Amino acid sequence: MIDQLSRYVPVLVWARAYNRQTFSNDMIAAVIVTIMLIPQSLAYAMLAGLPPEAGIYASIVPIILYAIFGTSRALAVGPVAVVSLLTASAIGQVAEQGTAGYAAAALTLAFLSGGFLLMLGVFRLGFLANFLSHPVIAGFIAASGILIATSQLKHILGVSAGGRTLPEMLGSIVANLSQLNSVTLAIGVLATGFLFWIRNNLKATLKRLGAPDLLADISTKAGPVVAVVATTLAVWGFDLADRGVKIVGEVPQSLPPLTLPDFSPALLEALLAPAILISIIGFVESVSVAQTLAAKKRQRVNPDQELIGLGAANLGAAFTGGYPVTGGFARSVVNFDAGAETPAAGAFTAIGLTIAAIALTPLVYYLPNATLAATIIVAVLGLVDLSILKKTWNYSRADFTAVAATIVLTLGLGVELGVAAGVAISVLLQLYKTSRPHVAEVGLVPGTQHFRNILRHKVETDPTLLTLRVDESLYFVNTRFLEEMIEHRIIDGNGLRNVVLMFSAVNEVDYSALESLESINHRLVEMGIGLHLSEVKGPVMDRLKRSHFIDQLNGRIFMSQYDAWTAFASQPVSGDIKETRIGT
Amino acid sequence: MIDQLSRYVPVLVWARAYNRQTFSNDMIAAVIVTIMLIPQSLAYAMLAGLPPEAGIYASIVPIILYAIFGTSRALAVGPVAVVSLLTASAIGQVAEQGTAGYAAAALTLAFLSGGFLLMLGVFRLGFLANFLSHPVIAGFIAASGILIATSQLKHILGVSAGGRTLPEMLGSIVANLSQLNSVTLAIGVLATGFLFWIRNNLKATLKRLGAPDLLADISTKAGPVVAVVATTLAVWGFDLADRGVKIVGEVPQSLPPLTLPDFSPALLEALLAPAILISIIGFVESVSVAQTLAAKKRQRVNPDQELIGLGAANLGAAFTGGYPVTGGFARSVVNFDAGAETPAAGAFTAIGLTIAAIALTPLVYYLPNATLAATIIVAVLGLVDLSILKKTWNYSRADFTAVAATIVLTLGLGVELGVAAGVAISVLLQLYKTSRPHVAEVGLVPGTQHFRNILRHKVETDPTLLTLRVDESLYFVNTRFLEEMIEHRIIDGNGLRNVVLMFSAVNEVDYSALESLESINHRLVEMGIGLHLSEVKGPVMDRLKRSHFIDQLNGRIFMSQYDAWTAFASQPVSGDIKETRIGT
Repeated sequence: MIDQLSRYVPVLVWARAYNRQTFSNDMIAAVIVTIMLIPQSLAYAMLAGLPPEAGIYASIVPIILYAIFGTSRALAVGPVAVVSLLTASAIGQVAEQGTAGYAAAALTLAFLSGGFLLMLGVFRLGFLANFLSHPVIAGFIAASGILIATSQLKHILGVSAGGRTLPEMLGSIVANLSQLNSVTLAIGVLATGFLFWIRNNLKATLKRLGAPDLLADISTKAGPVVAVVATTLAVWGFDLADRGVKIVGEVPQSLPPLTLPDFSPALLEALLAPAILISIIGFVESVSVAQTLAAKKRQRVNPDQELIGLGAANLGAAFTGGYPVTGGFARSVVNFDAGAETPAAGAFTAIGLTIAAIALTPLVYYLPNATLAATIIVAVLGLVDLSILKKTWNYSRADFTAVAATIVLTLGLGVELGVAAGVAISVLLQLYKTSRPHVAEVGLVPGTQHFRNILRHKVETDPTLLTLRVDESLYFVNTRFLEEMIEHRIIDGNGLRNVVLMFSAVNEVDYSALESLESINHRLVEMGIGLHLSEVKGPVMDRLKRSHFIDQLNGRIFMSQYDAWTAFASQPVSGDIKETRIGT
Repeated sequence: MIDQLSRYVPVLVWARAYNRQTFSNDMIAAVIVTIMLIPQSLAYAMLAGLPPEAGIYASIVPIILYAIFGTSRALAVGPVAVVSLLTASAIGQVAEQGTAGYAAAALTLAFLSGGFLLMLGVFRLGFLANFLSHPVIAGFIAASGILIATSQLKHILGVSAGGRTLPEMLGSIVANLSQLNSVTLAIGVLATGFLFWIRNNLKATLKRLGAPDLLADISTKAGPVVAVVATTLAVWGFDLADRGVKIVGEVPQSLPPLTLPDFSPALLEALLAPAILISIIGFVESVSVAQTLAAKKRQRVNPDQELIGLGAANLGAAFTGGYPVTGGFARSVVNFDAGAETPAAGAFTAIGLTIAAIALTPLVYYLPNATLAATIIVAVLGLVDLSILKKTWNYSRADFTAVAATIVLTLGLGVELGVAAGVAISVLLQLYKTSRPHVAEVGLVPGTQHFRNILRHKVETDPTLLTLRVDESLYFVNTRFLEEMIEHRIIDGNGLRNVVLMFSAVNEVDYSALESLESINHRLVEMGIGLHLSEVKGPVMDRLKRSHFIDQLNGRIFMSQYDAWTAFASQPVSGDIKETRIGT
């Protein structure tokens, strides 16, 4: 009973073993993560087009709910860059930024996303995330990083601009360039430069000076806090807000409020598809972070339970003034590196952020938007890793096509269409590949019972026997190919008495393929040639036995290809490699 | 040069060998087909919602163009039932039936369809038709037959009705049942009964009476002509048109007119998707008829050239007052059975129909619509073969699901959505199946070099060696499954020193899977267990060699699984079949 329950509520497992040492480790991690999260939460809320406090609220209750229901020991849940961009893109289509309807739509989006994730988790449908191939994810993340950085340029320049695609964003910035505010630009450029320097150089510099690793690490992560404090003081001290520098302004001092999403049917319908997209992308990002960190400590995460943890976190965000959340890479890595041992670290972070929400919000009044934009730009440009283009180009043109199309379409059409097109393209490419399978004519490797391609290996063959190894499952997209290929091969064969289809690589024969095999068999009967199968796998054989094909088969089914060879090879000839064409 | 040209214009091949005997055979076939086509053309035009002459025009120029560019010797091109239904459904959404806009839209649809088919043919994209699996086609044809028969009920009952789905059609008929015309009903029921009797009994009766096969056959096919003549005479003789029987009425006496499709951008955009659907379905139907007939005479059809032939035929229809056409099953079989030897038979049929269009159209003035509806109903109910449900249920639940969903959705949502959903469902089921591949632990079949599943066969195994045969190509939808499965198996294994992945059934390793293999390798390195591959196919190996995986691999790649066994099996034990669970 307790076991059953603790499967769905993992907190019951780790809380039993909690002690002073774990507490102290979790506490240290929480302090570090809290310091890092305050500016980050404000920044991501700005990216999502929401008031700054939404970012902080979205980090409090969701973290606690994930600590109860999630399976990763180190994952830190909250607003992340890509999901914030997707949120802005989705809500921007149903409400005007800055209105009450916009914030309410964000709650609805979080609610739908939470509900969808919970449903996937309860029905164990986490495999749906597998439709996003690694190249599509990599391409999408890189393109999103570029879009996010571009979307923040307006804050650095102090102009107003909009747009959902790269050309739109750039066009909008250029059109409004006359609004350029030089003080804002100065702050933005300085902050960006400072943060880049910290990220690329500070750690190495500190280490050279003999600082311990942990200190060097933490100082690097605390960089944004320094930038925030310095620029806030500058704006306050020199009255820069009067010179047109846009600032965060009033942020309410409050606990996360209890909020109710907008449940109007039209809004639910409009946000359903974006919510599904956000859920799946958030889940994929989160699980890959969680699995990477778990592997380092030989722990495991359970993807279906992760869906429940993330679902609960998003529902929490929906009812406490937040917006869609997921497990973030940067914050989780900081949490892990700082020594977090259990999800309790997350709960302590939540407490830290609550204190910040109540006590520290007046301090960010003079914080310039340009500084927040700088922290976002520096964070997301780390995501833009275009080396995937080169890697996939070397390995497989199909994978390269999927990456390149995802990048181009995400930049050119926006995030939703980009990722949807990426998924569609990778599925179509896969179907295309299997529609023209590799078929090898095989012969016996001398001195063994092993059969290989006559074009690649020195093998024995027999002129009365044609053995074809079909390197693909037989299903509807390639049945016509199979019929034509066999017909083609047989017209060539003089003196041919037996054809063996070696089924070692045939993992499935669907109904369309069954009909094709019947028609191939029929044709060979008419020509007086025997059709045989070898090395048919158990599951394929089980199914064929349920059809009439086996009764009608004009030949036998052999356990191994060697058995078929022994039965038919009457005049074996050993030969050189027939040709050296690669890939046939 | 001539060879090159005759590849695209097959008439150049067969016309050279044309002689008196072929001419006479083609001529006889043409006369028989013409007699059959006159009522059929009128009926299908009515089904498409077009004036009767459109059906005749659609059979003249398209037949001639197909004779020049097509590769089948017996295929008869013209209006067919399913394409007529699809045409009605597509144009019904952009124009009112009976208006000039409706007929112009039919020309546009034929133009788009012809252009699309030509494009597929020129770029050799005929494989796109493979996305329609046999179960989806069978389900779609059966459901279309039901829809077509239902759509004709209104003519039998003499009521007006509409609707694109089965519930809509039935609801519309019931709502208008008060219009029922008893004379029309009598004609309709008698004609339908007569045609069913002819179809099911006449041939056998004539044969019993000693008539030759061909005569019996032709009499059966001429049944509709008898029904047409008899009911026309009845309507004329008893002035039934005055009693509310709807008749064909005035049909212009003319050669096929030169027409120009409506090229307005809005119409082109609205009809593009339906045109693509019609093209692909028409192509699939046509090619399967052509291949079936060609196989009987050991001839071949070239699918890519068929696209060009059908494309030309549809363009011809667009410019001569027709509507979308394709190769029809019934008419082609009649043509073939009547002895047609070359596409010239089609050209002679076109001449016959031209004479009919000029001279015979006044004769059908009194032909009741109910008779045409009866010929359609009797023709299409032959298409409704629901045995596919039982066959697929026995063979594979996935195929059954695809058929059942296609039938239900076609009936419930209409033809376009039905077939689109069928394609989507069959693709998704395929992806789902490959996302959880069968993985067998294998051992050595004693006395051989052959390895089989330890759960199904008596094999030798070794406790230090785990050999897994992965029965699926490794690609993005199953990479996560692979990682989890291997992790799971290895936690079980005590004393395990080597893992061999037997790749005999792995036909592809995409980039996502490559990354998964790298991470599996990484984990096994940490655990001090060797990871090896065996029986890697040539094309897969070529690609792996282009990555760093082989360099990093914590083990070796063996040519055959037996080589791996020889290298590692230090303490082989022979065993019974481990379990009898099927499908693992």
